[in-house]
Amino acid sequence: MRIGVLGGGQLGRMLALAGIPLGHEFVFVEPGGEAVRGVGELINASADDRAAIDRLTNDVDIVTYEFENVPIATARLVAVRLPMYPPPEALAVSQDRVTEKTFFGELAIPTARFLAVESRADLDKAVATLGLPSVLKTRRLGYDGKGQRVLRVPADVPTAWAALAGTPLVLEAFVPFTRELSIVGVRGRDGAEAFYPVVENQHRDGILRGTFAPAPGLTAELQAAAETHARRVFERLNYVGVLAIELFQVGDELLANEMAPRVHNSGHWTIDGAATSQFENHVRAITGAPLGPTTVRGAVAMVNLIGRAPDPAAVLAIPYARLHLYGKAPKPGRKIGHVTIVGPSHEALAAPLAVLRGLTRG
Amino acid sequence: MRIGVLGGGQLGRMLALAGIPLGHEFVFVEPGGEAVRGVGELINASADDRAAIDRLTNDVDIVTYEFENVPIATARLVAVRLPMYPPPEALAVSQDRVTEKTFFGELAIPTARFLAVESRADLDKAVATLGLPSVLKTRRLGYDGKGQRVLRVPADVPTAWAALAGTPLVLEAFVPFTRELSIVGVRGRDGAEAFYPVVENQHRDGILRGTFAPAPGLTAELQAAAETHARRVFERLNYVGVLAIELFQVGDELLANEMAPRVHNSGHWTIDGAATSQFENHVRAITGAPLGPTTVRGAVAMVNLIGRAPDPAAVLAIPYARLHLYGKAPKPGRKIGHVTIVGPSHEALAAPLAVLRGLTRG
Repeated sequence: MRIGVLGGGQLGRMLALAGIPLGHEFVFVEPGGEAVRGVGELINASADDRAAIDRLTNDVDIVTYEFENVPIATARLVAVRLPMYPPPEALAVSQDRVTEKTFFGELAIPTARFLAVESRADLDKAVATLGLPSVLKTRRLGYDGKGQRVLRVPADVPTAWAALAGTPLVLEAFVPFTRELSIVGVRGRDGAEAFYPVVENQHRDGILRGTFAPAPGLTAELQAAAETHARRVFERLNYVGVLAIELFQVGDELLANEMAPRVHNSGHWTIDGAATSQFENHVRAITGAPLGPTTVRGAVAMVNLIGRAPDPAAVLAIPYARLHLYGKAPKPGRKIGHVTIVGPSHEALAAPLAVLRGLTRG
Repeated sequence: MRIGVLGGGQLGRMLALAGIPLGHEFVFVEPGGEAVRGVGELINASADDRAAIDRLTNDVDIVTYEFENVPIATARLVAVRLPMYPPPEALAVSQDRVTEKTFFGELAIPTARFLAVESRADLDKAVATLGLPSVLKTRRLGYDGKGQRVLRVPADVPTAWAALAGTPLVLEAFVPFTRELSIVGVRGRDGAEAFYPVVENQHRDGILRGTFAPAPGLTAELQAAAETHARRVFERLNYVGVLAIELFQVGDELLANEMAPRVHNSGHWTIDGAATSQFENHVRAITGAPLGPTTVRGAVAMVNLIGRAPDPAAVLAIPYARLHLYGKAPKPGRKIGHVTIVGPSHEALAAPLAVLRGLTRG
């Protein structure tokens, strides 16, 4: 099949690398598109370019997307012409933090308490209701920690307001979480569902730095709880494709933070560490093929390469390290690759991870 | 790095799919090049096109090849301009069955007895010396069983002569082999060597149908013997890259049949069944990166898809089956893809293999 992809960053690149062996071809809509050069055709335009969308839909059999800020108008336009997975409704939900948390609430998926903020008066009321610390966020277009401020003391309120005002906001109660987890699942066109084990994610400056899979100490109960959350989202949206839900673990409870209706950074470990990668399973799902097994090969650590790449030869010298570069120019704060290490246990990963961290800091 | 590849069939495609995540880009020289469409740039020409070679060597950092019938003049021309791995000498050896068997003999690697045949008189003398059955083969350009005839009875001699005369030939004594094996190894630019386990290959009509890895019942002695053969070739040629040697097992002895100075069909299982694939290790070797571990994940079966592809969804429904299509139009006798199944033991593969065989025959 010819698969159209709205977006063309590293997620698109890895979708293509997984889908090409299954006999598919890829066409990306992305300005620049350096990450997908050489793995498919490129329509050098942004997803709100109507002519580009016409070109795409005339050229492919199905369409998917690899970033969640696809304009809803584009998604709906595509979906009336061609099979489009995941459904545009998943974009509509995930693009607005208030809509998203309200959606979670309707499905009885617990979240942090939150209040929409349209004015300074709203903010003061919300702070009075939710207390401090709390987190003020833009409702839309936040990613990698951008567009949010933590309010710890009353003096932070006007500063945060000054920084973020001018766009709809939301105040979220601070969650005293034990750790950050996520679950990646996939649903086929026939309704079949499969889930990868819950993983632990470590962020710094709002950017994902590393993932450990399965999450150390993961219990069957925690896995089941996360799957139940994801299953509710799947069924409500008649979802097709890969979905990620970021979770806060608070004691034994899981609070949903946000969902991404696409392949997700916290699932990159599956390329090397699972029987079928999230990328292949997304392609299988949207093309109507059976899902592949999500079995894990031991313990896996994934480390993002941010800003600049270490010497590739030094990375490849680490036993069982798997290097994935994205073909993107180095730039501070930019994800330009990742490294996966697979071993028999998380303890066994400590030594190679220390070597890797030395290289990425160096 | 930008890697130039002489040839652009499925081996080139899989080299690119392995090399792209390591940050490399690929340029292929191949007429048509349907298998590499979408995984690199294509110079639509044959390897004896001087202008194409000029274009290639101006555009890339290093050059490799993925078919062994690269014209030696081309290989030598490239090698004076750019790093070229494996060395052209490996091509010169492998392109001529007499040169190749003589080379094996010089390295004390046992082979079938053989005699060069230039005339009908040579053939009669060779038959008298080697006896029947024996196999008459063209010295050059044979592949997938093409260009050879088995002589069983004296009446086969004139028939085979009529079919093959007009080009230099070789008569080889028939080897009463127990089974056909092969070893795939890799040598880095620093001289480091790594070997995959010896595998068992099943041919029909001269075309590889399936590979079982490791070869059932493989002993440490047999593995060591095969590695010794490969190591001698590596060191004599100052080899860099992946090398395959096809072997006949006769009792406890291993006779070399032929060598391929490239990634090899009997190593395709490594994509899904080994910690590092032959394709990635070839790319690592030629780019001067450290070799990756060749550890095997359980028992692996690889089945070629020949002529036409079965329904992909039916293949993907087989648990742990991994599908690899080559983007080539179906054609009788043509390798258009392969399927790998990884399991805990060869016995465990019997049931899924039976399902797969039903699909490929169907």
